[in-house]
Amino acid sequence: MNNVKMNTRLELTRQALAVRDYKALRNILQDVHPADISELLQELDAGDAALLFRLLPKDEAAEAFALLGAPAQQALIQSFSDRETAALLEALYVDEAVDFLEELPANAVKRILQSSTPDMRAQLNRFLQYKEDSAGSVMTTELMRFADDSTVGEALAAIRSAPRKLAMDHVLYITDRQRHLLGDINLYDLLTAQDDQPLQSLLGKSTQQVHTDQSTDEIIALFRHYNLYAMPVVDTENRLVGVVTLEDVLDLADRQATQDVELMAAMQPSEATYMDTTIPRHARNRLPWLLLLLISGMINGAILGGFEQVFMAVPLLVTFIPMLTDTGGNAGSQSSTLIIRGLAMGDITVRDAGKVLLKELGVSLIVSVGVGLLTFGRVMTMQGGSLMIALTVVTALSAIVVLSKLLGGLLPLLADKLRMDPALMAAPLITTVVDALGLIIYFTAAKLLLGM
Amino acid sequence: MNNVKMNTRLELTRQALAVRDYKALRNILQDVHPADISELLQELDAGDAALLFRLLPKDEAAEAFALLGAPAQQALIQSFSDRETAALLEALYVDEAVDFLEELPANAVKRILQSSTPDMRAQLNRFLQYKEDSAGSVMTTELMRFADDSTVGEALAAIRSAPRKLAMDHVLYITDRQRHLLGDINLYDLLTAQDDQPLQSLLGKSTQQVHTDQSTDEIIALFRHYNLYAMPVVDTENRLVGVVTLEDVLDLADRQATQDVELMAAMQPSEATYMDTTIPRHARNRLPWLLLLLISGMINGAILGGFEQVFMAVPLLVTFIPMLTDTGGNAGSQSSTLIIRGLAMGDITVRDAGKVLLKELGVSLIVSVGVGLLTFGRVMTMQGGSLMIALTVVTALSAIVVLSKLLGGLLPLLADKLRMDPALMAAPLITTVVDALGLIIYFTAAKLLLGM
Repeated sequence: MNNVKMNTRLELTRQALAVRDYKALRNILQDVHPADISELLQELDAGDAALLFRLLPKDEAAEAFALLGAPAQQALIQSFSDRETAALLEALYVDEAVDFLEELPANAVKRILQSSTPDMRAQLNRFLQYKEDSAGSVMTTELMRFADDSTVGEALAAIRSAPRKLAMDHVLYITDRQRHLLGDINLYDLLTAQDDQPLQSLLGKSTQQVHTDQSTDEIIALFRHYNLYAMPVVDTENRLVGVVTLEDVLDLADRQATQDVELMAAMQPSEATYMDTTIPRHARNRLPWLLLLLISGMINGAILGGFEQVFMAVPLLVTFIPMLTDTGGNAGSQSSTLIIRGLAMGDITVRDAGKVLLKELGVSLIVSVGVGLLTFGRVMTMQGGSLMIALTVVTALSAIVVLSKLLGGLLPLLADKLRMDPALMAAPLITTVVDALGLIIYFTAAKLLLGM
Repeated sequence: MNNVKMNTRLELTRQALAVRDYKALRNILQDVHPADISELLQELDAGDAALLFRLLPKDEAAEAFALLGAPAQQALIQSFSDRETAALLEALYVDEAVDFLEELPANAVKRILQSSTPDMRAQLNRFLQYKEDSAGSVMTTELMRFADDSTVGEALAAIRSAPRKLAMDHVLYITDRQRHLLGDINLYDLLTAQDDQPLQSLLGKSTQQVHTDQSTDEIIALFRHYNLYAMPVVDTENRLVGVVTLEDVLDLADRQATQDVELMAAMQPSEATYMDTTIPRHARNRLPWLLLLLISGMINGAILGGFEQVFMAVPLLVTFIPMLTDTGGNAGSQSSTLIIRGLAMGDITVRDAGKVLLKELGVSLIVSVGVGLLTFGRVMTMQGGSLMIALTVVTALSAIVVLSKLLGGLLPLLADKLRMDPALMAAPLITTVVDALGLIIYFTAAKLLLGM
């Protein structure tokens, strides 16, 4: 949201809270979107936030609550009674309620579940048992379901008299009397059909569906491929149990993309946002990878140590080390980044390995001519530069560029083939491997060309 | 889609095409989703693809066509007459038709427009004038619009008798008689209202809207913040002219994220997918950055050259260069990646600069203790290692880690403040700066501590 507008609203809210002017507060909140209310709640201190929250209409409060991060949610309910918290759970969609409960300590969950209605409790318990990152754990159970022998008119009448707005309000799911999923109908198509038509007759092509234990990665891929807004979830007996909405999937896809990028930058991927993550947690996510890469850096150091007599003889060679290793790292991460992204978007599959290698070979040959010419010119114009030194540096540089690009193209595909996360073959890891090979090539070329 | 299923279907299609068995082809295509048909079309050669395409029902053909990449679209229409192409355009949503036309050579566009209906021509021409990456260029004009003094019953009747299914089929937009946008209504809410209620009475909180010339970046941010499915677009006189759907925005957001990641890996961002990009084009995207970074690598070489007398005196120092520069690069890109991603997701704003710096300072202090201890142990147990050399390396390493993390945290925020793309402050660029500073710190520390 617009920062200026947000700051003004925050100021007005603070003033009204200071003098407990509830009427003014209600006025301020009247036309504010739940997404902005949740932002407002995060800016206020705990007591004020709780007070403001209690002034909101129930549905809106639930919507704003669902949009808060886990730390803000927990801060907010600190002042709530278990009964109040249970009432809040009722107002949330089941998957949102579960997300919230999963972040609470076990004894708090137990207490809150005891204050809930038996029906709610049963639903939540079932959800809490689904594997993390499975369709079951992200689906919503509030959906429109109709039997296939109902008519359009009956379905319309039922929708009109439903007590509460449903999560996915423009798709209805058609099952037989035993709840086996048969297909879906768009609300628009329902509306433009004849009242006495059976719902059966509106079912189109076979509907995409997933099982409760299918992974969210597969679900994201299906949503992307078929441009879906919603996907029904069935149990092992093919009975409809819930629906995954695009909103759920967008959150998942954002989180997945963020985690990929974090892996590629050599970090443990984190669940929380940057600001919500504490300093010790940030350190714990980053330190292990730095240590691992430090150790492989030491191996490179040892390789370098083995060539001491070469660089002692021609000290000028040392000054090209950072350039050679950096270029290798950059050339490799260009390739690996494109492949990792392509795999995530479904544009590239393991089947394409041959085409990828050919493409990277072609690109690396062109690129190494470019960087080679520049480097040749530079070395020849340097103090102490000679043709043989120039040839040494250019040879090593070209070999490093070709090698990095081939490895950068191949390793993510290999990871995918081995069912590992391609982003795990992170750019820094490729860099380290290429560094080692590059140094060996460089000093071996030096030995040969400079006659040592 | 499942590869095995896809291959079987492809095989069957090829066999049926070989013997021109149209009935078998229609059967195969009967239950196939347009997304899979478009995949099928891409696997077939041009003649077969055109033949298959002509067998599809008009709407489905249009849907599959819109999902093809630009090269595949152009290959497909090569065998079409201008009249056939114009008919295809009519079946596409206007924004899809424009996407397709924009990739064609200007004279082909002119010819096709001449074969189109005057109404279509006028619409397309208007669209082709919108700035790239503006709301106008991505919006759809096929929407449900009703005047505010209509009743629910009238709207329902109008929807039921509409000649064609509309792009955004579960939101309707309410305007006054002069087409000024007043708000929107969900189809579900319309359905559950009384027939004689005026539409006005269903309008809720103020609706988010954008102008035709607003940037797609702003639109993506709004969709993210408010969890929208659709956003109306108005002209300078606040008259409703179109709607941007979530589907449009998802494509844009994917492309934006890919381009960010490409920039961070030191490449020109590309429009096309990896496979659709030719080798020379790949080389052109990657070479300029490699050359730029090569030049800065040469500067680092020059810095290193200035310390020749130091590393000639203690050659062991050379072996730590790759480790120091790599760790600096890794530590910096960990930080910059988190900040760039946080900015893109709206979790971090420039206002947070102070908090970010404090956090990065804390993290870098913890992390440098970790990597420092490991390095100290390593140097002390090395042949030729001494306490003073260990202190030199550890001092330089700690300084480099702190510096990289502060720069990695700060530079993307600075870029954002200057309204540049934060991803442009790419990790490799930070690496190069940190390398230079790191080498200076390292050898200065060596001079002081080793008494040279």
